[in-house]
Amino acid sequence: MIIRQIHVTPVAFRDPPLLNAAGVHEPWALRTIVEVITDEGLSGLGETYGDLGHLTKVRECAEALVGVDVHATNEMYARISAIVGDVVTDMHGLTGAATQEKSIDRVFAAFEVACLDIRGKAAGVPVVDLLGGRVRDAVPYSAYLFYKWAGHPGGEPDRFGAALDPAGLVDQASMLIKEYGFASIKLKGGVFAPQEEVAAIIALREAFPGVPLRLDPNAAWTVETSIQVGQALEGSLQYLEDPTPGIPGMSKVAAEVPMPLATNMCVVTPEHLPPAIAARAIGVLLLDHHYWGGLVRSSHIAALCDTFGLELSMHSNSHLGISLAAMTHLAAATPNLTHACDTHTPWQNGQDVVAPGALRFVDGAVPVPDGPGLGVELDRDALAVMHEQYLACGITERDDTTYMQRFEPAFSARRPRW
Amino acid sequence: MIIRQIHVTPVAFRDPPLLNAAGVHEPWALRTIVEVITDEGLSGLGETYGDLGHLTKVRECAEALVGVDVHATNEMYARISAIVGDVVTDMHGLTGAATQEKSIDRVFAAFEVACLDIRGKAAGVPVVDLLGGRVRDAVPYSAYLFYKWAGHPGGEPDRFGAALDPAGLVDQASMLIKEYGFASIKLKGGVFAPQEEVAAIIALREAFPGVPLRLDPNAAWTVETSIQVGQALEGSLQYLEDPTPGIPGMSKVAAEVPMPLATNMCVVTPEHLPPAIAARAIGVLLLDHHYWGGLVRSSHIAALCDTFGLELSMHSNSHLGISLAAMTHLAAATPNLTHACDTHTPWQNGQDVVAPGALRFVDGAVPVPDGPGLGVELDRDALAVMHEQYLACGITERDDTTYMQRFEPAFSARRPRW
Ligand SMILES: [Mg+2]
Ligand SMILES: [Mg+2]
Repeated sequence: MIIRQIHVTPVAFRDPPLLNAAGVHEPWALRTIVEVITDEGLSGLGETYGDLGHLTKVRECAEALVGVDVHATNEMYARISAIVGDVVTDMHGLTGAATQEKSIDRVFAAFEVACLDIRGKAAGVPVVDLLGGRVRDAVPYSAYLFYKWAGHPGGEPDRFGAALDPAGLVDQASMLIKEYGFASIKLKGGVFAPQEEVAAIIALREAFPGVPLRLDPNAAWTVETSIQVGQALEGSLQYLEDPTPGIPGMSKVAAEVPMPLATNMCVVTPEHLPPAIAARAIGVLLLDHHYWGGLVRSSHIAALCDTFGLELSMHSNSHLGISLAAMTHLAAATPNLTHACDTHTPWQNGQDVVAPGALRFVDGAVPVPDGPGLGVELDRDALAVMHEQYLACGITERDDTTYMQRFEPAFSARRPRW
Repeated sequence: MIIRQIHVTPVAFRDPPLLNAAGVHEPWALRTIVEVITDEGLSGLGETYGDLGHLTKVRECAEALVGVDVHATNEMYARISAIVGDVVTDMHGLTGAATQEKSIDRVFAAFEVACLDIRGKAAGVPVVDLLGGRVRDAVPYSAYLFYKWAGHPGGEPDRFGAALDPAGLVDQASMLIKEYGFASIKLKGGVFAPQEEVAAIIALREAFPGVPLRLDPNAAWTVETSIQVGQALEGSLQYLEDPTPGIPGMSKVAAEVPMPLATNMCVVTPEHLPPAIAARAIGVLLLDHHYWGGLVRSSHIAALCDTFGLELSMHSNSHLGISLAAMTHLAAATPNLTHACDTHTPWQNGQDVVAPGALRFVDGAVPVPDGPGLGVELDRDALAVMHEQYLACGITERDDTTYMQRFEPAFSARRPRW
């Protein structure tokens, strides 16, 4: 099964004004859709970041992969390594300085997922079966709460409404839980002063007793603030996610707070694992196949976490259905991924490049698609519309900070802020 | 592809009187051959240890796997875990106390390899392609030297002759290199006093300049002796393998000797990796899919070693062609397995359960078999003969020590001995 063609299509979809430590989501979120086609006419799908630097690398690498067998992922990785070289793509500054290794893994992942989609279709089995088979039939996701404005400035309010205080977040959680059945809640913090976010968690705990809660300020706090918040929230958090920047800082916090620390910021590539483990900086790794080099490399990392006693959950950026399918197959095959995963799916508000029906939420969990491969099909009309949106929207790099500064000129995304 | 039948066949093949720290190889080596057959009539091969306790567990688990899809390795692992429970199988005492985890991995591995053989056949690709594709077309193996007697007591001398001093080992190395083209040499030590084995390494270095050398006394030495030997052999060894028992002892030695330490004894299951890494006890892990839970779990361990800067080679017990094929596919797909692997193949002296032709040595390396799956086929006549040998030979557990004591009643396999 030789790769004959790869289509790389940037798309844009409407995104609500979700607030975070870096600023606020712009009106359009970007993704890149990869479609790999073999000599036998089988096709497979991948989804990755949409930022222009990354898109450019994905396009270059797509050309270099023509002629490679879909099984030959080591060869693909080598070819991509040769192209990506020392050119780096950053991921919105959220995962630390860009490195060559990170850039290679990010480019590689989209193609790897597409090739697994093809291999599953060829073998007549879902991708989960190429990763060891399912240990769960449905993958639980968490309600991913954001502080948000009612709508983008100058635009209509969106259907989610504003959430700028504890009551607004409780309403948002109620809405998401009613619509999706989520049984865990994550709050994106780092937006307001820490004591306000502590109050929000306490309000959520009271409104949803027994529901596991998580708080992720994206490293907006100093070590001291992180310790204060962690101690104030004893008994209220399943885990505290990236309170402060860097492995040394996280290590200091971890030693003083009662709950495990999770990360998708200070450990984002294999080289971070030895120092983080030695420093006992984290208790939970938030896996993300988009930057850990695809599904098989993520399964290696999951095994490593099992060996070292690290718990696992899954990180999410704004994404579409191809990514949700890939995450679901990986999580379903990973015995030690026992926490509900993050997903931005509700904020897509129904927009997707995959045809409806394959992906659904039942009691907050996505049943593993039954079809071969990823089990999702491209909706080519939707893809065309979303590509037109990409061309028209004028955004080529995600930049939450500059967008925020249009409305709050004094805004700074410095970390730590409090 | 549902498993409908599994045939489990113990076999015995003639083994020369190879000396080691535990005693001497008995005249027959035991293995268990596993043949998995699916509802579609595809069959796959696995090979594992032949000791009766292990064989019994393999047979029990074989029954429990009927009805499982060949992709569902997580389900297979769970079923085997439930059966193996707290019953343990020991591996000749060479890899430390038996644990439940080790026993499960050992039983699971044979079935996992057979299922990968089937999946490769179904997809029309070699097993290496199910593991990421080849990064090398042929896998280098080392000449595995043993001190040995001319023949089993009371029997005819074998064609390899005696090797009881440096000159005998140099002759043995010359013979193996002439026949196989090996470009690395490993000496199984722990047989004679350390200074004699040091002399043997120096004789080999002089006879084969530039050829990487390794010495493996199977933990026969104290920490002090290990440090003395390591320092005496500065510049002469690629690595020193298991000089002394246990992670703490290995750590002390590693800090004082100039070459990396390798192990297939103190790190043989995932739980050993965190303490060994923390203690800097080893520089090289000798992977062995037979006890690391099959090929995919071994690939997880290989990735972990890459992450933590551990080098990789591969361990071998007495084995047949199914194991050699499996080792070759795994090594060919593992980018960071850069040292020549160990194999006992020459000591088989042509005996095998696989049909001739698929496996051959070219310049000390085995080209990856081209056929689908493992690329080897059962020779059913040879299997029948070797099964008869198993029934007739009267050996059901490998026991080098008791066999040695028949000829040297005062022999003790205590470790450390020197
Ligand atoms: Mg996060
Ligand atoms: Mg050894």
